[in-house]
Amino acid sequence: MEKTRTNEFLPIPPEVHLTDDLAAALQTAEIVIISIHAQALRAFLRDVYARGLAEELCTKQMILCMKGLEIGTGKRLTTVVKEELGAAIQPVVWVGPGHVQDFVRGIPNCMVLAGEERAVLHDLVEVLGSPLIRFYYGEDLLGTEVGAAAKNVIGLAAGMLDGFSYASLKGALMARGARELSRLVHAMGGDGDTIYGLSHLGDYEATLFSPHSNNRRYGEAVVRGTAGDFHKIAEGVYTVEALMALAAEYHVELPICTTVYEIVAHECDPREQLMQLFLRRNKSEKE
Amino acid sequence: MEKTRTNEFLPIPPEVHLTDDLAAALQTAEIVIISIHAQALRAFLRDVYARGLAEELCTKQMILCMKGLEIGTGKRLTTVVKEELGAAIQPVVWVGPGHVQDFVRGIPNCMVLAGEERAVLHDLVEVLGSPLIRFYYGEDLLGTEVGAAAKNVIGLAAGMLDGFSYASLKGALMARGARELSRLVHAMGGDGDTIYGLSHLGDYEATLFSPHSNNRRYGEAVVRGTAGDFHKIAEGVYTVEALMALAAEYHVELPICTTVYEIVAHECDPREQLMQLFLRRNKSEKE
Repeated sequence: MEKTRTNEFLPIPPEVHLTDDLAAALQTAEIVIISIHAQALRAFLRDVYARGLAEELCTKQMILCMKGLEIGTGKRLTTVVKEELGAAIQPVVWVGPGHVQDFVRGIPNCMVLAGEERAVLHDLVEVLGSPLIRFYYGEDLLGTEVGAAAKNVIGLAAGMLDGFSYASLKGALMARGARELSRLVHAMGGDGDTIYGLSHLGDYEATLFSPHSNNRRYGEAVVRGTAGDFHKIAEGVYTVEALMALAAEYHVELPICTTVYEIVAHECDPREQLMQLFLRRNKSEKE
Repeated sequence: MEKTRTNEFLPIPPEVHLTDDLAAALQTAEIVIISIHAQALRAFLRDVYARGLAEELCTKQMILCMKGLEIGTGKRLTTVVKEELGAAIQPVVWVGPGHVQDFVRGIPNCMVLAGEERAVLHDLVEVLGSPLIRFYYGEDLLGTEVGAAAKNVIGLAAGMLDGFSYASLKGALMARGARELSRLVHAMGGDGDTIYGLSHLGDYEATLFSPHSNNRRYGEAVVRGTAGDFHKIAEGVYTVEALMALAAEYHVELPICTTVYEIVAHECDPREQLMQLFLRRNKSEKE
């Protein structure tokens, strides 16, 4: 383990103790930050439980520094945690537009800590905040989680527009993509405005405009016919399937996400799908 | 007049009649589309009135294909129209992210027609809509006008971030800039959600990311110390002053717009101003 003390971004300071002993890590921790692939979370928690460490973990403040919706169920990650460890645990979610590549160069950003209790969030911001990261409290956990996951789907759509050299449509995509997801969050019982916060809209710069965005790049490759096996690293491909399940369950129309789904899951023709979006009946901006 | 039938973008078709005879133009028109500099609107309307053409104009459907707030008063353009021509006239506003450079290449976009009566908007969309422009109805005229004007101020802020090589902060800028303007529109009696529609957020691609955006370029030049007389074509420099008046009148805090104002109007140090934004007390995303 000690051989990995330096990675491509920074050397880990000597006062930080690295370990692969899960029991030891949990016993000494005050705050447990979990940052793994979303689809691996349930298996990880079952491993914690099988090792008899669940009780220990439940006494700590858990932060999920990760995003996604569970494939197959469309469940939020905090729901997965509660299902595996019991409803009493109150995990906090840490998401937003900060990037390690920028932080190590001293470039600040804003992020959000979302959870059910403001007092808990306040304490965590005291510990984790710095001039590099300006934290906002997120008081709508549902909207924060759905928004953080769903932005990758809008990233796929942005890439498709880039593939057509229609980058100037990304403005309309931001307005209309966020609007349909805001409707979904509202229908699920969250606050639709959360979509316009740091977890979703706040990450559009990185997700819709960065040449490095995996989802944007994959969307572009699909339109250009050069996608190959690239989809495996584009999280939006999995997320859009979860969104289709949520749209059906909550009876919300998601025209842009559905278009992305038809293209990536059913290989429908991207240009025909885009034209269909443009030929829908005219409507109010609020719809 | 006839010598200008071809401009840099397209030749004007022969069935389009050009004239510089205002009376003749108004008499034959069914729909009057006005597209001039925002600050020239009041003088133009007074000219119309002085020539005895106001009554003629008031019988037509007027569309303002323009944006801005009046310098000095902070007034919306439809307010200027009503003040000059009477409260009975109901101008419609046509704004959004479409660009002539794209339309002439066949690249479609979405735009918004906002006005007080849905039936009027419906008729206009029938006449003006095409596969190139997908129109949405905007039923919050106030929010549409304030949003369309204010996006240039967020464009200035985006340019300042580019000047610092802090482009990755544009995501947070989109979320937090739109949030404060949404609060302003709500306080003014409009619908805060309109800020997240096509007139404001929908134009962020062009305004915050395009290398050609005058406001973005001017913000960048200010930070780099190369601005010179460039501000004259950056509309946001005037709009931010109007926003300061509105913020005071409606008691709304606009931290990002105020920062932009301090930098462009009072030549405050951009880096210090940015740091102050980051050192504000932590707060909820909803605030």
